[in-house]
Amino acid sequence: MATAPSTTRELAHPTREEIRLEGVLHALSDPMRLSVVRDLAEQDEELSCSHFVLPVTKSTSTHHFRVLRESGVLQQVYRGTAKMNGLRRDDLDALFPGLLDSVLAAAAGQAHRLGRS
Amino acid sequence: MATAPSTTRELAHPTREEIRLEGVLHALSDPMRLSVVRDLAEQDEELSCSHFVLPVTKSTSTHHFRVLRESGVLQQVYRGTAKMNGLRRDDLDALFPGLLDSVLAAAAGQAHRLGRS
Repeated sequence: MATAPSTTRELAHPTREEIRLEGVLHALSDPMRLSVVRDLAEQDEELSCSHFVLPVTKSTSTHHFRVLRESGVLQQVYRGTAKMNGLRRDDLDALFPGLLDSVLAAAAGQAHRLGRS
Repeated sequence: MATAPSTTRELAHPTREEIRLEGVLHALSDPMRLSVVRDLAEQDEELSCSHFVLPVTKSTSTHHFRVLRESGVLQQVYRGTAKMNGLRRDDLDALFPGLLDSVLAAAAGQAHRLGRS
């Protein structure tokens, strides 16, 4: 009945070929998920989940990261006890050229317009 | 109690300033709504709701068009008995430069990859 720890710590990701535009757009359509992606794009490095201080419960936060991972926007790996998040920019740029950059630019422009940049 | 017909036939739209990126991405994240937007972008003219043959019930179809209208992606007006749909390309391009085109290109690329173009 018991599952080996090594197995439970492997997180499922879609391959590049399995990533779908609709899923990516859905993942990016939530303000909190979009802010996580903007942070990752700005830092250009892996960040732990605890880096992101989202004004939601832990389980909601975990849900948002799962949506981002399962849609193919993020790669999540355990490094020691930390769950690290990286943007799958190469995959997204290869599949949907210019999409991620236009969404990031749109998000920055909107934040500026709304005085939240 | 009765509402004047002229009032009921006016459909609510966000102004350009009220359009939000998250709402637009959500509207575009559904395969059927995305196909409606692709059709409108290709035709480059207003199309009636009945032009679109979606494999869903009438009420689901109406829901999809409402999501597209309320997010600011489409403009819907009654012309006689037909509800006509137009893409709000000028508004979207002004707010989010390059976004609509990159989504349309991504959708075309994906349809081609999946053999559905």
